[in-house]
Amino acid sequence: GVNPDLASERQTASFSVEKLTALLDGGTEQTRIRRAVVEAIESDPVFSRENQYFQTQNERYEAAVKKAVHLQKKMHEMGWTENGPEYKYIYRALSGDVAFLLHRVFMRSISVLGSDKQIAKWIPLATQHKLIGSYAQTELGHGTYLQGLETTAVFDTATQEFILNTPKISAMKWWPGDMGRSATHTVVFAQLYIHGKCYGIHPFIVQIRSLQDHSLCPGITAGDIGPKMNFEHIDNGYLLLKNVRIPRENMLSKFCEVRPDGTYVRQGSQKINYFTMTTVRISLISDEVLTPLMKACTIAIRYSVVRRQSKLKPGEQEAKILDYQTQQEKLLPQLATAYAFHFINDYLQELFNRGYREIQRKNFDMLPELHALSSGFKAVITQHCTAGVEICLRACGGHGYSLLSGLPSLYTKILASCIYEGENTILLLQTARFLIKCFMAASAGQPVPPSVTYLAAVKHGKCPAKNKLDFLRADIYTEAYQHVAVRLTSSTAAKLQDLIQSGVKKHDAWNQCTVQLVQAAKAHCHYIAVKNFAETVEKLETKAGIQRIMKHLCDLFALHGIFSNTGAFLHDGYTSAAQMDMVTASYLDLLAVIRKDAVPLVDAFDFTDKSLNSALGSSDGQVYQRLYEWAQKSPTNQMSPAYERYLKPLLHNTLSKL
Amino acid sequence: GVNPDLASERQTASFSVEKLTALLDGGTEQTRIRRAVVEAIESDPVFSRENQYFQTQNERYEAAVKKAVHLQKKMHEMGWTENGPEYKYIYRALSGDVAFLLHRVFMRSISVLGSDKQIAKWIPLATQHKLIGSYAQTELGHGTYLQGLETTAVFDTATQEFILNTPKISAMKWWPGDMGRSATHTVVFAQLYIHGKCYGIHPFIVQIRSLQDHSLCPGITAGDIGPKMNFEHIDNGYLLLKNVRIPRENMLSKFCEVRPDGTYVRQGSQKINYFTMTTVRISLISDEVLTPLMKACTIAIRYSVVRRQSKLKPGEQEAKILDYQTQQEKLLPQLATAYAFHFINDYLQELFNRGYREIQRKNFDMLPELHALSSGFKAVITQHCTAGVEICLRACGGHGYSLLSGLPSLYTKILASCIYEGENTILLLQTARFLIKCFMAASAGQPVPPSVTYLAAVKHGKCPAKNKLDFLRADIYTEAYQHVAVRLTSSTAAKLQDLIQSGVKKHDAWNQCTVQLVQAAKAHCHYIAVKNFAETVEKLETKAGIQRIMKHLCDLFALHGIFSNTGAFLHDGYTSAAQMDMVTASYLDLLAVIRKDAVPLVDAFDFTDKSLNSALGSSDGQVYQRLYEWAQKSPTNQMSPAYERYLKPLLHNTLSKL
Repeated sequence: GVNPDLASERQTASFSVEKLTALLDGGTEQTRIRRAVVEAIESDPVFSRENQYFQTQNERYEAAVKKAVHLQKKMHEMGWTENGPEYKYIYRALSGDVAFLLHRVFMRSISVLGSDKQIAKWIPLATQHKLIGSYAQTELGHGTYLQGLETTAVFDTATQEFILNTPKISAMKWWPGDMGRSATHTVVFAQLYIHGKCYGIHPFIVQIRSLQDHSLCPGITAGDIGPKMNFEHIDNGYLLLKNVRIPRENMLSKFCEVRPDGTYVRQGSQKINYFTMTTVRISLISDEVLTPLMKACTIAIRYSVVRRQSKLKPGEQEAKILDYQTQQEKLLPQLATAYAFHFINDYLQELFNRGYREIQRKNFDMLPELHALSSGFKAVITQHCTAGVEICLRACGGHGYSLLSGLPSLYTKILASCIYEGENTILLLQTARFLIKCFMAASAGQPVPPSVTYLAAVKHGKCPAKNKLDFLRADIYTEAYQHVAVRLTSSTAAKLQDLIQSGVKKHDAWNQCTVQLVQAAKAHCHYIAVKNFAETVEKLETKAGIQRIMKHLCDLFALHGIFSNTGAFLHDGYTSAAQMDMVTASYLDLLAVIRKDAVPLVDAFDFTDKSLNSALGSSDGQVYQRLYEWAQKSPTNQMSPAYERYLKPLLHNTLSKL
Repeated sequence: GVNPDLASERQTASFSVEKLTALLDGGTEQTRIRRAVVEAIESDPVFSRENQYFQTQNERYEAAVKKAVHLQKKMHEMGWTENGPEYKYIYRALSGDVAFLLHRVFMRSISVLGSDKQIAKWIPLATQHKLIGSYAQTELGHGTYLQGLETTAVFDTATQEFILNTPKISAMKWWPGDMGRSATHTVVFAQLYIHGKCYGIHPFIVQIRSLQDHSLCPGITAGDIGPKMNFEHIDNGYLLLKNVRIPRENMLSKFCEVRPDGTYVRQGSQKINYFTMTTVRISLISDEVLTPLMKACTIAIRYSVVRRQSKLKPGEQEAKILDYQTQQEKLLPQLATAYAFHFINDYLQELFNRGYREIQRKNFDMLPELHALSSGFKAVITQHCTAGVEICLRACGGHGYSLLSGLPSLYTKILASCIYEGENTILLLQTARFLIKCFMAASAGQPVPPSVTYLAAVKHGKCPAKNKLDFLRADIYTEAYQHVAVRLTSSTAAKLQDLIQSGVKKHDAWNQCTVQLVQAAKAHCHYIAVKNFAETVEKLETKAGIQRIMKHLCDLFALHGIFSNTGAFLHDGYTSAAQMDMVTASYLDLLAVIRKDAVPLVDAFDFTDKSLNSALGSSDGQVYQRLYEWAQKSPTNQMSPAYERYLKPLLHNTLSKL
């Protein structure tokens, strides 16, 4: 049965959980399809994650390969296709615990960077899994700065081949997924040399393992880079190339070609390619970043209404820990953040779909803005969600620290999202570069992209709020966020100009402003997230209580951001100290309001117990029973040789009975 | 050889590294002893941690038991004793990777809570390891609130025994170290019942495993609680008791005794016992909290001068990442924090030694202050150091995410310190309760303990700084911190009183103020840490450049705290916006100054390569070579059954040559 402490939380929901689930899914039909996929995956024992927390890295890898192979069969069985409506739910249903994810990147890079002939040759082979592809860009000594890659590809006109080498240890390819043990092929990024001249980074298809017996091909050294904080199921690999020869046809040549005589020909526009890179940052948000935060909130909030500890009132029963204000202040803002970013993700997806249509019509005007938004939001969302998962983990005390809570692996996995696909600080500086440029343009009266037109309208007013209820008005807090974003951008632009005018060289001046530039980029994204949440709430139907509770969450998201960063709002007096006290009061009031709906709000995420894989977060709230049963299955409860080897000799001369 | 990028950093040190090491150790003699212990431990292959990142939880446990047993031999061999000067360095030299830590807690609890007769019986047995002890307090459903423990001990006058039971699943003992697989005995905390009346929590010595064959004793169910985020080497356990009978003599009876007829006798003062609990919180700071942060700083800073990525100036070589302002702003404040907390730890140790002497003289006056300080600083130091290690990890990008960097295990281990020995939020609220009490007393003109006399002197002045250099004056920033601590305490006290006067019940009012009370407690500790750092710097000898660089770190620690929390200082106008801009300017200037000494400052921590156990942080800076060599030894580079089982059938019908 359901733990009565959890059941009671559901009886008082102020809104329809099922309707909110449908809203999050984008419609009831989507909910139905998603649930069907989850049901099909979870009822298949091959996809079980039951033993995950007990497995070694080797066992995790083997299970992930098994699942990847089985998934092909499953899709065929179920009639799911890569273009079907079910496809996007499969990965989520597997909780990402599957191999060959880089195989898809391998295919995409060929589709985007390859000639029609190359696509015709490789894509069918890859689709039918007649090879396993990977994507080898990052090197041991080179990550974010692509121009610094050291791997070389020298064109040999005599044999019509490229000769590939990783000339130094720092040039070794390092990190590519699926490459350590599985891949037979990979796309290698290397500096192209023709007749001694360097033409920069280009992509080459290289076979690394035999299709007969999987042995490494001549000139190839490859292996697994060893243990990581998570991703045990992925064989991130290293790759050394020593005079590896590949045919001329293996350079991906949609944009650049090397003719048989060594002539280098550039063709077409690469802009669409840059666009592909930015879309990857957006595409990972939902599955890799939002889902873990939503799961962590579900686990921590359910646990917090089941766990009772200490007394709120003398003489009463011990209190549910979610009734403590400090616990609410840890968890409920994370819940609001999950919703806020869900809606900003919808906004970004839509924007990028529009951008894609424009680009197909050869209109590249939106590119700089899309790049800035994808960079900034990738950084801000991964940062906040990672911090949020950590808060959820800590808020569960000792039990949160057990792997069986599910929280440690959510944390160690989401943490990587702050680093991969663009390190966050570097991404924020790219957004900042765009902001400064647009601010200068706007100040000079030139037109700027829609998301930054607000920079032109620098206002020196004051926040008009008169009492704490005014801070529950979206126009009041949205304007405050806008004001801070403008102030941080304009003041940093001014500092930059001052430095340059005082004789500091441009790149030094930039470096001396980067700490503040990062702040400006964050403020910009935070403002857009708040504004978008508020606009989303406005458009919701008022019935079934959904709009009301979403409004509360929007307010909480906005006020939490102010409460956690009061200095930015107080700095120039836009917000007064008295107003800040109103913010605090409204913020703390909201915690108590949202606390009542906390469990229904996480129930709406609609995770199954199997997908949470958590002793603390299950839908029935039977936390202690589950922890105990699960712990008994741990391999650490098998017989250990430590007794015979070490303890027995130590204890053997003790009295048998004390 | 040493990587020239690292070597060059050492050539320009502005101070004597060796002298700073001696300062940190407390004298050159201490340094000598410490190094001798490290040398003896690290040259012994049994204590090697080389394979640690490749081992399973079972392998880690077995190695830790082996080390614990071997350590006895080693100590005998080396002539080290528990009271000798070497003893405190052993645990650090082992990086805590050893079993039977709870055996010491078992012994301490008997020494403190046991009668002379009990001490005479059990301590010699324990000292000679004729039994292995544990300490069973926490239950599955009960952690911080001791009164809520559910385990019962019923006195049976007929047999002169206590009958112990864990009547519900939530009463099961859960988490005790060394209990899952190793311990033969444990101290169980249980509710004492005599003739049906409950006398509250008392400690009982219970044998749980046979000394003959290590099998579980009758009525005992015990095992390992399974995988955790770290501490794989420790067998944290569970324990169920079913009608377990122990003799009357096994209740630890220094303070309370049950006579044969069931008469309950309380004797002596338990105050010294409370004091023991608070000292544990202080004693863990050095090894469990400061050392990991110092190691993380060493790894991240050395890596940041060896890693080159992107260009600061066009046409030049790629820059060392530590030359980027954003990287400095991540790492250098953590370095300053490590030093700040090293000095506050010295301060607390001294204070507690003084307190101990007073208490032995039956003067308990210092107890409330010591309790407040130990609670608050345990929380603040673990919180900051945990965050600092995480920042170091992230600042190393992808390579920081590899277990071989050493950073993930530092992080996953230090994180636990925020939870154990008192959950941080609860501890901060205890400090806050003391602050509020003292503030009220001080306002009423009553005397208060020395650390809080400042609360009486509420000043409504303004920060007198006139330019950015003024913010390098310790009196200026210390006073700003003091002002904030007073403001947060007094405003929360006022809110509390207002609520109570408006009719809110006292416990509800308290709960509604807890978010702000936590802020006040943090501000109090932060103020004391800044003040202590500044006072320490004042007292340093000016020669050898030590005082100068420590002054810079003190300034950085103070200004980082203001820069990261500007709102607290701006709120009531004590600091103006213009002054905050000066803080920012001075803060950013300091980064560039300290950056020059960053490597010498971590070298002074004097960690050996073996103790860092990191591919990124070794003293020779040969990062890439080490990562590659180490990765090749990973078990993930052994033959996997995945190829034969899954990949071969998938690939078998592919063309052998594409």
